This record gives sequence, C-alpha cells and structure tokens, in this order.
Amino acid sequence: MNAPLSPIEQLQLELPDLDWITDASRIARLSQDFAWFSPVLHRQLKDKVADAVVRPRTEEEIRQFVSACARRRVPITLRGSGTGNYGQTTPLAGGVVLDMSAYNASIWVRPGVARAQAGIRLGALEKQVQETGQELRCMPSTYRSATLGGLFGGGFGGVGSINYGPLGASGNVLGIRAMTIEPEPQVVELRGAEAMRMHHLWGTNGLVLELEVGLSPAHPWLETLVVFEDFDSALSFGDALANAPGIIKREVAFFGSPVPDHLGQLAEFLPKGCHAVLSLVAESCEEPLQEMVAVHAGRVSYRKTAEEVRKSNRTLMEFTWNHTTLHALKIDKSLTYLQSSFVPGQHVQQIREMEARFAGEVLMHAEFLRGLDGRISCSALQLVRFTTEERLDEIMRLHREAGVRINNPHVFVVEDGKAGGPLPPEVVAMKKRFDPLSLLNPGKLRDWPVSA
Amino acid sequence: MNAPLSPIEQLQLELPDLDWITDASRIARLSQDFAWFSPVLHRQLKDKVADAVVRPRTEEEIRQFVSACARRRVPITLRGSGTGNYGQTTPLAGGVVLDMSAYNASIWVRPGVARAQAGIRLGALEKQVQETGQELRCMPSTYRSATLGGLFGGGFGGVGSINYGPLGASGNVLGIRAMTIEPEPQVVELRGAEAMRMHHLWGTNGLVLELEVGLSPAHPWLETLVVFEDFDSALSFGDALANAPGIIKREVAFFGSPVPDHLGQLAEFLPKGCHAVLSLVAESCEEPLQEMVAVHAGRVSYRKTAEEVRKSNRTLMEFTWNHTTLHALKIDKSLTYLQSSFVPGQHVQQIREMEARFAGEVLMHAEFLRGLDGRISCSALQLVRFTTEERLDEIMRLHREAGVRINNPHVFVVEDGKAGGPLPPEVVAMKKRFDPLSLLNPGKLRDWPVSA
Repeated sequence: MNAPLSPIEQLQLELPDLDWITDASRIARLSQDFAWFSPVLHRQLKDKVADAVVRPRTEEEIRQFVSACARRRVPITLRGSGTGNYGQTTPLAGGVVLDMSAYNASIWVRPGVARAQAGIRLGALEKQVQETGQELRCMPSTYRSATLGGLFGGGFGGVGSINYGPLGASGNVLGIRAMTIEPEPQVVELRGAEAMRMHHLWGTNGLVLELEVGLSPAHPWLETLVVFEDFDSALSFGDALANAPGIIKREVAFFGSPVPDHLGQLAEFLPKGCHAVLSLVAESCEEPLQEMVAVHAGRVSYRKTAEEVRKSNRTLMEFTWNHTTLHALKIDKSLTYLQSSFVPGQHVQQIREMEARFAGEVLMHAEFLRGLDGRISCSALQLVRFTTEERLDEIMRLHREAGVRINNPHVFVVEDGKAGGPLPPEVVAMKKRFDPLSLLNPGKLRDWPVSA
Repeated sequence: MNAPLSPIEQLQLELPDLDWITDASRIARLSQDFAWFSPVLHRQLKDKVADAVVRPRTEEEIRQFVSACARRRVPITLRGSGTGNYGQTTPLAGGVVLDMSAYNASIWVRPGVARAQAGIRLGALEKQVQETGQELRCMPSTYRSATLGGLFGGGFGGVGSINYGPLGASGNVLGIRAMTIEPEPQVVELRGAEAMRMHHLWGTNGLVLELEVGLSPAHPWLETLVVFEDFDSALSFGDALANAPGIIKREVAFFGSPVPDHLGQLAEFLPKGCHAVLSLVAESCEEPLQEMVAVHAGRVSYRKTAEEVRKSNRTLMEFTWNHTTLHALKIDKSLTYLQSSFVPGQHVQQIREMEARFAGEVLMHAEFLRGLDGRISCSALQLVRFTTEERLDEIMRLHREAGVRINNPHVFVVEDGKAGGPLPPEVVAMKKRFDPLSLLNPGKLRDWPVSA
C-alpha cells in the first residue's frame, strides 16, 4: 500500500501538462526575491520554501491550476521575476509558487496605452512600445528582468515617476484583468481606482492576469552624471533640475558622498568623495541642462547620447532606485538600506537634516519624483551601515520623529510596510471577493494569518 | 522750392523697394493692438499713431531699414500681429512701426526644437511641427494670428504652460538671433538666459530676428467642458486635474459663474449659472478624467475628440487665456479684466477668498499652470465690471494686500506691469548694447523717456 499522495502530488497528477518545477534547488531559488537586502528579512525568510513551482503559459492553464488549488486548499504565492524586496514571492506556508513569467504576451500597444499579460518582462514591453515612439511611464531599475505584474504587485515608482508620479497615480494603470481563487475561478476586468485595490499588496488579494498601462512619448535621452564638491550644491542642483518645467526629463537621482564610491562600475566617472546627480534629460534640453550645471558649480563627468546608450547596452537607469543599493551591497556586504519619503516642499531641508544627523551611518541616495498630488519630492533609498536590528529600528524611529515617512523594507507583513497600518475597507473587500478561501500568500496580511 | 523732406519721407526715398504701408487708416490700425481690453489704455493710446509702417521680407531688408532709421534717429516700434494687450505695438512718439509679419519662414524643425523667423504665425508653426509629431509648448489662445516674435516680446504663457511653465522657463526658448539698432547693425545669437533678457520687454531692448523654441510631443487631445453646480467643486476639480501626474494634459481653465454665461458661442454646453472647467487631456487619459469628474460631481457637457476638433476647425483653445476676455467683451462692453498670479499651494484658497470678497464685480477666470519653479498654481484673467479707474486701482490694491500678485494690464510702461519695478541690470545692459540710440519703442521704458 502506497503512502497517501500529498496535495501537491495530487495537483501534479491532476495537471500533468503544466510546466512544474520540482528540482529542489530551483524551487528554493524561486521561493526567494531580493529580500536579502534586509538582514532582518534575510534571517526570517531565507529558509522558507515552496513545495513546488508551476509556470503556466495560458490563462486556461492558470485557471486549471487555481481551480485545483482551491479545491485542495493549497496556498498560492505569486511570483514575477523575484526582483522585489519584501519577500512577497516567498511562501510562509509552503504550497505552490505560481511563477507568472511564462504568461508574458503583449496584447496590444495603442497611442498612450498598452495591454499585456502580467508575466511580461518590462524590458520586453518597453522595447515593443518604443517601436511606436512611446515608452513606459514607470520603469524600475530592474526592468530587464522585472515583470509588469510584479511591478504592480510590489513596485512603487521608478524611472519616469518624476513626470507621472508613482505607479498608483490615476492614469498610470488603467485597468487589470484578475482571477478569483475559487474552485470555479471568475475572471473580472477592473478599471481605474478599483484596479488599484490590488496594487502593492504582494499578490495577497487577487491574481492579476493582464494589465493596461498608460504610456508616455519616447524621447532620445541624454544620460549624464554631474559631480559636485559639496552635498548642498549637488542636492540643490538635483532639486532645481527636478522642478525645472522646461527641461524634459525621465530621471533625477541624488547620491551624497560616499554613495558614489560604492558604484564600482562607474568609478572612473565618480571621483572619490564626490557628490553626484544622475539624470536622463531629453537631448534637446542639453543646453539648459548645461546652463544649470554651470550655475550650480557642477561638472559633467559622464555624458552619453541616446544612440551611445543604445549601442553600448549600458544605461544609467540601472544605477538608480534599488539598483544603487544592489551595486553598493556588492561592494560592501555590511550595508542595508531604508525606504523613506519626504514632505514635498520640505524635502531638501529634511534631507539636509538627516544628513547632518546620520552622516557616516546613513548614506543619502534620493530619487526625485512627483507624488500622487503631483508635487515634486524625494523618495530616498538610503544605504545604512548595519550594526544591529535594534539600531536599525532606532534609525527608522528617529526619521519618523523628524517627520520623514519610513516605508519599512525590513518587514514582510503588508500592513507593516508602505501601507503603514490597517488596510482600507475597499482593499479588504477585494481580498474577500477574490480570495474567499484565503489561499493567496498566507501570512502576509495581518488579519489572514497562516492557518496551519 | 520744395518743403524739406521729413525723416520718414527720406527713409522711403532711400529704401523704395521696401513694402511701405502709407494708407492712413491702415497705419492707424497697425499702430494698435488689443490694449482696448483696458479702458485706461484705450483712453491713453487710442489716438497714438505711427508715421508709417514697413513690412520687410528679408533680414537684409530689415538691416537696411534699421540702418537708415539709426542714421536719421527715427523711432522704431516692433509689431507682430498686434494680439498683445499692453499697447506694446503702439508708438508713443511716431516713427515707423516695423511689422515683422512678412518675415515669417520656418527655418528648421528637429526633435524637441524648432527655429523660425520672428514673424511666423504660431498657427503656421504649430502646423509644421505637428507634421513631425510634435507641438508648441506654449500656445497663446491667439495662436492663429499671433507671431512667435510677438509671443516672445509680449506674451507670458498659454496652452501648454500647465506642463512647461511660462515661456520664460529655461528650455522653452533656447536662443534668439537679434539685431542692434545702429547705423551698422550687428547681428548676434544669444542663448539661454542671455536670450531671455529680451523677453516680455515689448521690443524695447532689441530686435529679435529668429527664435529657437523647445517643442513637446504631440498628443491627440480630447477637448471637454465639465460643468458644476457650485464654485468650490469646479475649482477643486480643476486643481485636482491640473495636479494629477498620471493624466496627460495641455490645458485646464476654471470659469466661475457667471463667466460661462459670457461665452456665447458655447452657450448650448454651458447651462446658465454654471461653473465650468475647460480642459485638453490626452485621449488615452479619458477614463481617469471621467473618474475624476464623477468624484467631483461634475458633468461633461462638451466632448470632442482630436479628430472631431480637426474636422470642425473649432477648438476650445480659443476660449482660454485672453480669448475668454475677448468673448466676454463682445457680449458686455462694460467689462475689463485683471491679470494676477496666486501663490502656489495657496492658489485655491486665495481664489476662494477673492471670490468671497469681489463676487459680482470681479468674475473669476483662472488658468492652471506651472510656475518657473515647476509648481502648479493659477494665473487669473478675471473679468471686472468696470466703473471707474479709481475703483479699478482699488481692486488691484486690495488684491495685492491679500497677497495676490497683480500684473497690471492697464499700464504701458514695462516697469509698471508684470516686470513689477526697476529692470535688472542685465536687462538694462542689453538695452544699452542693442539700442544705444534709444530708438526702440520710446516711452515704454521709464528710464528712456520719449525725448522729443
């Protein structure tokens, strides 16, 4: 007599044609994301692993899989490419990781809007929309591997947010097609604000099949690094460039010293000890950019035209947002990071205050962007010289006390991170509607604890 | 023995091949602009007239004319199409009106930038840049007739300023080619900030031959009117739309009641007593626009796609900025107007305060735009029920006392208007460099009074 089949084995037996990944080391790898940026999450999550990974190719395969899981009460954890940082692709209670990366077709590209399957890589989508003279409004630095669905589920903003705000701003995501987790899965189109009730919830309250996103006109971008001898001049330049309404741009990032010293691949352009501003500005705006550099006593140390960027296949976009962190961690394993947002209009002053208070321990890397209200501010992804978890908590507490918002990247529970507290009722309603059996990513929402 | 020839007759004799306009009624007409919006300026300027008008076609003709005027000390007043409002094309001391409208070639259109002769009509330039998928960043409502040089010399902002700020923001005008007023005229290319030292000075400190302006990507614009039952809802909607970073737009204007009642050509779409918001939003953003309309309890009463606009040859752009004033004055000759700008971030509150204080006498028409610092605010072109010049002055004083900036449109001296006081030294230096004989538009700069 054989041992009874586990639910996972039953699933695999029922759905033999799905692309199942059963190799233990691959399952372990596909159960993780970039949560290792946080020593806290690394400690908590590094040994969490799925029982299996499945990689469906069609909506029908997804439907069959979801139905089977719902009937057997098998937890499902969604995964794009695992470029997130909050462990959202890491199952806390086993079950199956649903890897969406093979469900990756572009559906259509129209003036101002594109629609694609959730598993499409942003780099692939960007390439397609570029062919129509357009580009993505919000590109994470991980765009080469990151998926559209992953960006929606765990991303916030990125390159382009300086114009269009965070991904959550109305107009950036126009609609989604989502599936309920039930024995008879329903497929529903959600538009506008309703769609956004599944945004940045780490795949806990719905399975997103397709997304329709706003596009922006493409420009030939000039990529530059401008270096400065002092912190304030660099910061003022970044702020002036970010705000200048007549200079078309896609990205402005500020790196206070010694952050530039951690970008090894750009070392020849970043003199030791410098402060730097990285930007993408429309080539046609180079002259006013250079004029602004001169006013702020900066020096352009790196300058690549769009054509040079294309030919070299190296873009400064991959040194922004959390790629800065990645590059730094490669050089110094003792570093971790923060995620914070400043009060629009007070952001420059707040950054100076935090620099004065934490210089040497918290290294300033700030990204300029528009908020939901359209105002320019900064989100910072500061590097932190990690000592203890207690000190890390204290640093975050001191920032909060100084009026700086911390979107704690050292937690894996949605409400403890950027959500900043209990979920609004409309998000809870979405959870109940789309995941009535509480099978999605159990343990990541406070009110739906891991049952086992 | 004949009477001695006047300087003007000498000019005409020396340069017989120029296109001279000598008909008295045409000279009178070409000596005026839209200063009649102001009863004060109308009284002061209506009888001012040039001795002649000349309409050169080439830089060489301009050079010959300028040289001859300089040698004979004949005043020169520059004119585009006369759509300005400050009497800047009206000579106070006779001389010749230099009508630039026949010097109107487009020189080139490139990605992000166009260069053209000063006399080109903005409508013609817009058409040319549209063929490349681009559009002008700053379109006055008078674009059909207004010239590029006139916009630079007397304009401030317009349709598009909600993205790119006023024309004066760095990047909107990249350079100009200007001529000195001397017996041997010099032609000089001025770039960036240096070029802007001739901006909004009514042709008093240099003769602009060519301009190089930044362009923006063209979008198919959806033109809508959204009507509201109350002032605050309409204003809040306008502000929310103006600020929404994910909704691509070209124009947002707010008309408090009873301004819409004065737009006769749109009467069927503007119920008597309504408050309205006029906007141009990218067609791809209609869904988030409609969502925002619903949130603010508005109703879309007019909706035209880009294709419908093109076919009808009627655009709401011609009901914005000072065209609103023009339409209103056609219906009610007793009206005049103000030009004011509000403090960014306080603009909604200030508009409410002014409405509470002056309702019935000052009718609110506000245009949303970015300032030089990139922040969203409003410029208002309020309609005023005119009683006396004293009361008009009092209204402006009361606005100033409440912290609202007034760019007095009832004066013809540069320093008394938007310049708001003495000219900066770099502008004065430009005057001395480009007009050493003080022949340009005498009487419009305080320190260069009409001599004779």
